[in-house]
Amino acid sequence: MHRFNVELGDRGYPIVIGRQLLGDPQQLQPYIHGDQVLIVTNETVAPLYLDTLRKGLRGVGQVDLVELADGEAFKNLDTLNRIFDTLLQRRHNRSTTLVALGGGVVGDMTGFAAACYQRGVNFVQVPTTLLAQVDSSVGGKTGVNHPLGKNMIGAFYQPQLVLADMDTLQTLPERELSAGLAEVIKYGLICDAPFFAWIEAHMEELLRRDTQILAHAVQLCCRAKATVVAEDEREQGRRAILNFGHTFGHAIESVQGYGQWLHGEAVAAGMVMAAELSRLQGYIDAELVARIRTLLQRAGLPQEAPEDMAREDFFTAMAVDKKVVDGRLRLVLLRRLGEAMVVDDTPRERIAEALALCGAG
Amino acid sequence: MHRFNVELGDRGYPIVIGRQLLGDPQQLQPYIHGDQVLIVTNETVAPLYLDTLRKGLRGVGQVDLVELADGEAFKNLDTLNRIFDTLLQRRHNRSTTLVALGGGVVGDMTGFAAACYQRGVNFVQVPTTLLAQVDSSVGGKTGVNHPLGKNMIGAFYQPQLVLADMDTLQTLPERELSAGLAEVIKYGLICDAPFFAWIEAHMEELLRRDTQILAHAVQLCCRAKATVVAEDEREQGRRAILNFGHTFGHAIESVQGYGQWLHGEAVAAGMVMAAELSRLQGYIDAELVARIRTLLQRAGLPQEAPEDMAREDFFTAMAVDKKVVDGRLRLVLLRRLGEAMVVDDTPRERIAEALALCGAG
Repeated sequence: MHRFNVELGDRGYPIVIGRQLLGDPQQLQPYIHGDQVLIVTNETVAPLYLDTLRKGLRGVGQVDLVELADGEAFKNLDTLNRIFDTLLQRRHNRSTTLVALGGGVVGDMTGFAAACYQRGVNFVQVPTTLLAQVDSSVGGKTGVNHPLGKNMIGAFYQPQLVLADMDTLQTLPERELSAGLAEVIKYGLICDAPFFAWIEAHMEELLRRDTQILAHAVQLCCRAKATVVAEDEREQGRRAILNFGHTFGHAIESVQGYGQWLHGEAVAAGMVMAAELSRLQGYIDAELVARIRTLLQRAGLPQEAPEDMAREDFFTAMAVDKKVVDGRLRLVLLRRLGEAMVVDDTPRERIAEALALCGAG
Repeated sequence: MHRFNVELGDRGYPIVIGRQLLGDPQQLQPYIHGDQVLIVTNETVAPLYLDTLRKGLRGVGQVDLVELADGEAFKNLDTLNRIFDTLLQRRHNRSTTLVALGGGVVGDMTGFAAACYQRGVNFVQVPTTLLAQVDSSVGGKTGVNHPLGKNMIGAFYQPQLVLADMDTLQTLPERELSAGLAEVIKYGLICDAPFFAWIEAHMEELLRRDTQILAHAVQLCCRAKATVVAEDEREQGRRAILNFGHTFGHAIESVQGYGQWLHGEAVAAGMVMAAELSRLQGYIDAELVARIRTLLQRAGLPQEAPEDMAREDFFTAMAVDKKVVDGRLRLVLLRRLGEAMVVDDTPRERIAEALALCGAG
């Protein structure tokens, strides 16, 4: 079992990574302060892990449940309101704790609901997908989508605990495992060259879901993210490097409609675009771009834009992205393998060229 | 002109109270950091003050507008989403500033929209009602109502500036002036006995809208609130005294349907209930309760529960109030004139008795 803290002063919290954590009251209960819990999960995860989680919560007086439809398409204000409805119908008070059992969508929405309910209650992240374990459950970014932009409505709001149980990865659909690997690869690219090489060396075991290997990957990603978040919780500066590939990726998700491409798939294609752009700007060479493409391919991830998406679609979608500051598009590029940087003066023509190299006509 | 700060470190901000402030670019513009502004107002306030405010914003590149329906009944997630729609349609980025031009409803919703849009953008409060000027625009409580409870969804989120222009009070309907006076009287009761006596001495001038007298009252209330908020921004303790009369008042608003009673009217009746309860608990005498009732009456405010509301209705509504902590109802009582305290062990029978003394059968 790995255990370490996200250092954010009085908003700091532990991340626990291991096996058989979900049903263990010793893990969860110290972080439940009141006598009420609302579990938020979805229709896919509930049949698999809800009973186990309830065991981990025995002793809590009132445990209620909201079961959401599964998928990014439901990450919106209407679904959020279902969480508020249940909290109020079941009379949850300010000392309640929300427990997010599921992937990134469940975690983002539950965290945002916790941030807003009675102006802020406790919450715990129990991520059950690789993507949520390595990325979205850590760092306190919460929110929902708007038809005009991804994650446009949200809050920075930290959980009390992140409990990443490796056992839950055994039931993950292959496509979602791959989507999670996109974020794993991202951490190698932006801040840890040896880790990137380690992923190259261990891709087969990762795909075979070797628990030890997965736990090592999750741990390195969480530690990397915890360090970045501790330096820059509200993304005033350095934290933006975590968005490597995401500006292009969000454009894909937004134009395709949420839920068509998985977030990790869109990020994978977006990372190739950002890598090509880094090469065009003279920072990295073609060999590294090829290594990135190969690794993504081995992970079962796309390296190209969706077939029906033109360059103009990207520019239109990116114009409303959160990374636009006073009219300038802020992008994350690679300076070299293991080092990312934020730039806001990339010529539009270069971006168009990079998009074209990824099949956006 | 009065000018002082809410001392909250890097979240601190000035409150400016005076005349002819709205149209003065020197007041507003230093607090607009980017090149985009969204004014949020309502259909009642817009015809009166929108043009003046636009003068105060000349020089800002992009000034957009959302005009909401007027009233507490529209303070909900659907209306909030209209603000997000406009922000996204007009491509507002992270450096945008939202300006709330209106009363408490506009301010609460605009502040909450600013807290959530792209996980937090700047905002400025331009309160145009007495209630908003003396209370709701200061302190960073933002939010919307849920059909099952008032202000149940929201955030603590501070503005960059509060600009209270006394001129806007000249057009305020009489009923709303009275509603604002309820909060003014509250500040005397909970923390400033000499101010309570001053209000008794100046009620006629307040009702006559003498600008100097109003500015003095607004200033004292804002200073009192700023002090309390600086001590306890997130209402872990002392800030709760600002809720004097509000737990009963929220019950009235929630059962009557938002918008039937004005917030200040419900708080007035709620303060009498809390005063009666303080007397039953032995803290204050009948003479003070009579003084409070008389002053509220002179201000044109109710001192009784709505005719159709029974005690049980109060208890049901209060059970979901934010002031319930682990099943115990937290109430604010008067220890003496000018001093309030938070209690959470008041016997239900005493509460019922106090409600009966205010006409709740």
